[in-house]
Amino acid sequence: MLVLTKADIKKVFTMKDAIHADKEALRMYAQGKSVVPLRVNIDIPKEQGQSLFMPAYVEELDATGIKIVSVFPKNIEIGKPSVPAQMILMDGKTGEVCAIMDGTYLTQLRTGAVQGAATDILAREDAKIAVLFGTGGQAGTQLEAMLNVRDLEEVRVFDINFERAKQFAAEMQQEFAHFNTRIIAVEDGNEAVKDADIITTVTTSRRPVFDGTLVKKGVHVNGVGAYTPEMQELPETIVQQADKVIFDTKEGVLAEAGDFIIPMQKGIVSEEDFEGDLGQVILGEVKGRETEQEITLFKSVGTAVLDVVTAHQIYKKALALNVGQSVEL
Amino acid sequence: MLVLTKADIKKVFTMKDAIHADKEALRMYAQGKSVVPLRVNIDIPKEQGQSLFMPAYVEELDATGIKIVSVFPKNIEIGKPSVPAQMILMDGKTGEVCAIMDGTYLTQLRTGAVQGAATDILAREDAKIAVLFGTGGQAGTQLEAMLNVRDLEEVRVFDINFERAKQFAAEMQQEFAHFNTRIIAVEDGNEAVKDADIITTVTTSRRPVFDGTLVKKGVHVNGVGAYTPEMQELPETIVQQADKVIFDTKEGVLAEAGDFIIPMQKGIVSEEDFEGDLGQVILGEVKGRETEQEITLFKSVGTAVLDVVTAHQIYKKALALNVGQSVEL
Repeated sequence: MLVLTKADIKKVFTMKDAIHADKEALRMYAQGKSVVPLRVNIDIPKEQGQSLFMPAYVEELDATGIKIVSVFPKNIEIGKPSVPAQMILMDGKTGEVCAIMDGTYLTQLRTGAVQGAATDILAREDAKIAVLFGTGGQAGTQLEAMLNVRDLEEVRVFDINFERAKQFAAEMQQEFAHFNTRIIAVEDGNEAVKDADIITTVTTSRRPVFDGTLVKKGVHVNGVGAYTPEMQELPETIVQQADKVIFDTKEGVLAEAGDFIIPMQKGIVSEEDFEGDLGQVILGEVKGRETEQEITLFKSVGTAVLDVVTAHQIYKKALALNVGQSVEL
Repeated sequence: MLVLTKADIKKVFTMKDAIHADKEALRMYAQGKSVVPLRVNIDIPKEQGQSLFMPAYVEELDATGIKIVSVFPKNIEIGKPSVPAQMILMDGKTGEVCAIMDGTYLTQLRTGAVQGAATDILAREDAKIAVLFGTGGQAGTQLEAMLNVRDLEEVRVFDINFERAKQFAAEMQQEFAHFNTRIIAVEDGNEAVKDADIITTVTTSRRPVFDGTLVKKGVHVNGVGAYTPEMQELPETIVQQADKVIFDTKEGVLAEAGDFIIPMQKGIVSEEDFEGDLGQVILGEVKGRETEQEITLFKSVGTAVLDVVTAHQIYKKALALNVGQSVEL
């Protein structure tokens, strides 16, 4: 069994690799080549915690896996991560566990990458200005993914806490200096979106994080936060006016995301207004952007297929490059 | 994270430890101090395989865990185990994965131990003769558990393949020489049960493995194989005539075990004929054996609570004795 830390994963796997893996994962999902049982949740009221178990099987890769994610807000008080996560990867031909890896970085990577895949496929080729809402644990890879798929001049970072936005922007400017993109914090999110070509929201907000009437024609919007029916970070006007609405998985989004559940309950939009899944766009079954003027919207809540496919590709590269600790079990 | 192989587990954990752990596990289960979500099964038709995911949380121990068991019959053709299994143990206070250990040996240990717990509690104190039906992967620890809880003079081993029974008996005689018990293979199971004090069946048989009318008064019978609605290793006369019928978990047995589902469907027995769970006997809520003449019957199909509690105790002993490989994750 191979044990892979975050540092090991970083050694062998780039954001470009992850975007490629996520595109493959969504294609296989759209082709019905994966099995994703319902997630199992165990509540741990004693600690106000919860442990989530997310298994999946991907036939084409002969890969099975389960991501274990725990949400323990009180961990912060004892200096531990509040969302520890691990990924267990199994050989789908024999059922044997072949790897265990850091699940926190895997999640950040595949969640950034799924947006990168969507932005690559749906945003205008000449996109220059991007806005990022949110600076939490998932924000860094969201930024990295946008930088990887478009030649951006500027990324504007907004957070309800401006100091945090400034600190995040400064750190990211340093980490991603090689992209030659200006990364700046902004105090006014509405001002920032007016001439943006790409907008990505990655927050847990319960109300839209910008005014949807202000965006320009041709913008591409990604909603990758707001993963419960109560959360809503996307303006309803964008959900309503977008020319193309694409999901990572429609099934997941319509079951979990307030961004869509709330306007659907209000009768502002209905299921017929949505085009379909990104995997179907990849397969040519559903149309993506058709003109420079269209507004495209992508919403992701994630799926265990992304974890299994990404973990499988990481494992294969780590094996090939002899990275990670091999242990007998 | 601590990695524990079968050899590591053997170094720190005895069958006596396992029997103690299983008694504790069933007590906690009976007290409602555990959470056991429905098992998740992924079928892998391409390999005629199946991967099973069994999570549980035990509040009193602050322990969460998930056992991953895969059933891949074709593995035998390539010299790999046909039922590979791993146990992932998590700290229930923080959600962090703290150990991964060999799940095959864990299963053998806790499955033997749950019968040992039942035999210890339900069999006559003066039991001298035991019969074991079945010599498969679970048989060794079943034998070991009986030897641990009663001072037996003789254990008779029956298998539909007499050669296999002889080989098994010879190996076990050597491995468990220190118990000073005669371990012999028998060709006639019905002859063997006539004067037996303890009978344990651990087969996947679809028809009863002995004639239930032949047993003597005072016998204690354990059914630990036959884990699907189609399998039936226990004679219906025993199910019907036992004075006390006790389960590891009634919920599990009545949902999964043909030994009970089939006679209940026939109307031979009904739910009211069964006393309850072994944990309730341990708590004094349900009566176990009351006289030397009673026939007692124990049926087990297993529960993830046994895995989590046993794995937790193994982990704690391994930590204390500095056994196992510690790896960074």
